Amino acid sequence: MVTVGLDRPDRRNRAIRLARRPSGIPGDDCWDRADEPVPEPIDGELLVRIELLSIDPAMRGWMNDVDSYLPPVRVGAVMRAAGIGQVIESRNPRFSIGDYVSGTFGVQEYAISDGTGVIVVDPDTTPLASHLSVLGMTGMTAYFGLFDAGRLRDGETVVVTAAAGGVGSLVGQLAKTRDCRVIGIAGGAEKCRKVRALGFDECIDRQTDSVRSELAALCPDGIDVFFDNVGGAILEAGLAHLAHGARVVLCGAVSQYNEATMRGPSNYMQLLVKRASMTGFVVFDYARRFASARQALEELLRRGDLRSEEHVVTGLDNFPTALRSLFDGSNTGKLILRIDNEMERQ
Amino acid sequence: MVTVGLDRPDRRNRAIRLARRPSGIPGDDCWDRADEPVPEPIDGELLVRIELLSIDPAMRGWMNDVDSYLPPVRVGAVMRAAGIGQVIESRNPRFSIGDYVSGTFGVQEYAISDGTGVIVVDPDTTPLASHLSVLGMTGMTAYFGLFDAGRLRDGETVVVTAAAGGVGSLVGQLAKTRDCRVIGIAGGAEKCRKVRALGFDECIDRQTDSVRSELAALCPDGIDVFFDNVGGAILEAGLAHLAHGARVVLCGAVSQYNEATMRGPSNYMQLLVKRASMTGFVVFDYARRFASARQALEELLRRGDLRSEEHVVTGLDNFPTALRSLFDGSNTGKLILRIDNEMERQ
Repeated sequence: MVTVGLDRPDRRNRAIRLARRPSGIPGDDCWDRADEPVPEPIDGELLVRIELLSIDPAMRGWMNDVDSYLPPVRVGAVMRAAGIGQVIESRNPRFSIGDYVSGTFGVQEYAISDGTGVIVVDPDTTPLASHLSVLGMTGMTAYFGLFDAGRLRDGETVVVTAAAGGVGSLVGQLAKTRDCRVIGIAGGAEKCRKVRALGFDECIDRQTDSVRSELAALCPDGIDVFFDNVGGAILEAGLAHLAHGARVVLCGAVSQYNEATMRGPSNYMQLLVKRASMTGFVVFDYARRFASARQALEELLRRGDLRSEEHVVTGLDNFPTALRSLFDGSNTGKLILRIDNEMERQ
Repeated sequence: MVTVGLDRPDRRNRAIRLARRPSGIPGDDCWDRADEPVPEPIDGELLVRIELLSIDPAMRGWMNDVDSYLPPVRVGAVMRAAGIGQVIESRNPRFSIGDYVSGTFGVQEYAISDGTGVIVVDPDTTPLASHLSVLGMTGMTAYFGLFDAGRLRDGETVVVTAAAGGVGSLVGQLAKTRDCRVIGIAGGAEKCRKVRALGFDECIDRQTDSVRSELAALCPDGIDVFFDNVGGAILEAGLAHLAHGARVVLCGAVSQYNEATMRGPSNYMQLLVKRASMTGFVVFDYARRFASARQALEELLRRGDLRSEEHVVTGLDNFPTALRSLFDGSNTGKLILRIDNEMERQ
C-alpha cells in the first residue's frame, strides 16, 4: 500500500549543514544555515516532519575527517542526527501518514528517507522524547554497554562518569536494578545532587581535587565496572581503583573530543595488575536485540525503576549552542532539540 | 622421609641485595653484594644450590616502591628472581638431595626454602635452562597470555612486540602452531632476522619510522591479537590497525618501566571504534593449569614446533649488567644468568 500526502510545493526546509571542520569546540562558523525546497518523495521514500533531535557528544567525532565507527559527515552535508518526527507523505508501504517515526533524520525540519533504520514509535504509551532517550540510542547504549560490554553481575560496585548525562544517568539506574552499589562522577554540586536523586548511592564532584581519594573511600574493595564517558584524568582515577577482574567500559571520552591531541590513560598497566579489561563497544552492533531491550526498559519505566531526565532546548537555530553545552558542562540529562518548524507555528 | 645433606659450616653465600630504589635504568649503585654464611635448614626446609636464574623485565617493576601484582622487593632484601638449582640439604619430605628444583630463589648462590612454589624438574628430558624458559614462567606467560587472555582462534592475524625476547619469541611460535599469520616487531635488523628464522611470517624493525605503514601493509584486514610487551609508541601503532573484535593482550610495557611518567596510549578509543578489548593478566593466576600447559609445551618442543632461544650470561656479579641489557635492546631470547658458584669451580 502506498499513501501519498498533500502536495505542498511551497514547503521549505531549514537545515543545518557542516560548513567547515572544527578544531576544538565547534564555533558558529562551523555551520551553514540552509533554506531550501522540500523534495518530493519518490517510490519507496517517506517525508518526515521532524519534531525532536537527539544531541550527543558523539556528534563532535562525526565532524572530524576521520573514519570511525561511522564515516565523517561530509563538509556541505546536513549534520547527522537521530530524530523523531511524523510521516507527512509516504510512498513506502511500511509507513503511513500520521505515523511517528524514529531514525537518523539530520539537523533539519524535514527529512526524506527510504525507511532504512526507521522504526514506528508509539507516542501514546511513552512520551515522544523518551523514544529518543531511554527507548532510543541513549537507552540502548546504557543497556548493552553495562550488561554486555560490562558483563555486570548482581551486587557489584559500579562507577559511572558523566553520571548526570543522558547515558550515565541511565547506566547508574540500571545498575541499581541489579542490587549494585553505584557511584557517579559528575561536574559540580548541583549535578551531583541530581544524580543522587536518581538513586545513585553517591556522587563525586569531578571539579574537586579529591576524586581519587573519594573513589578510594567509597570503593574500598575496588571498582568492578567502570563505565567511562569522559576519559582523561577521570579515567585514570578509575583505573587507579579497579577491583580484581574489573571491566572498564569505553563508551565515550567527552573530555578529549575537543583536544588537539588525545590523552591516553598513563596508568593503563593497572589493567595488568588487576587482571582487568578495557572494552569498547558500538551500540549499532546490537541492533537485532534493540526490540527486546526496549521492552525491558519500557517495563522499568512503567514500574518507576527508571527515570528519564531530559533537557529540551527549542529551536533549530539553537543547535550550535546546544551542542556546545555538552562540552562546557552546562547540560544535565539527555539533551534534546525541539524543532519549532512551520507546521507547529501555524 | 627427611634427608639431611652434608653439614658445611664454612659454606658462604654470595647474594645481591637491593641497596636503593632506582630512578630510570638501575645503576650499579642499586645493588649491595653480600657475602654471608649459609643458614642451616630447619624442619620443613631445604637448601638449594642455585645454578640458573631467570632475568626478566618485570624485575624492574619489583624494584619500585609500589604494590603491584607482587609486593615490592624491600630495600636490603635479596633481589627476587626465579631460578633452578639442586637440593643439597633437605628437611622437607617432598624433596631429596640431588633433586633439581625450580622456584623463586633470589639472586644468590644458595637459597633456603620451605618448599612453597618449588617444583622438581627433570634435567634429563629437557635441558635445565628450558625449565626456566619454555617450561618456566616465560612459557606459561606466552601460553596463557595468548590462548586465555588473547582468546586466540585458528587462522587469525597476530602481532607480537619484543618478538625477539623470551616471551615474544614463544608467543609467535605458539600462534604459528594454530595456523595464524604472525608478525613480530623487534629492535633492529639482526633481531628481525632471528625472529623470521623462528618461523614468524614477517618482522618489523621498530627502530625505523615506518612501523605504522608496515603494519598496515602486512595486516590489511587488521590485527586480531596484539600481544604487547613494550607499550609506548609501538602499542599506539598496534591500536591504529586493529581488526573488529581485536584483543590487545597487556603482558608488559618494557619501553616505559624506566620512565619517570608512564605514557598511556593516546589512541585508546580505537578500542571503541573496533569493538576491541585490552586485557591484562598475571601468569600466577593460572598456577593450577601450569602442569598441563607444561605438558603441551614439552610435546611441541619434542616435535620441533617450538624452539627455545636462550641467552645465558655467566657470573652472579654480572646480574646488574644483564638486567640492564633487557632495557637497552642488547638482549635476544630468554635471558638467563648462570651462577658460577664455588661448588662448580671446584
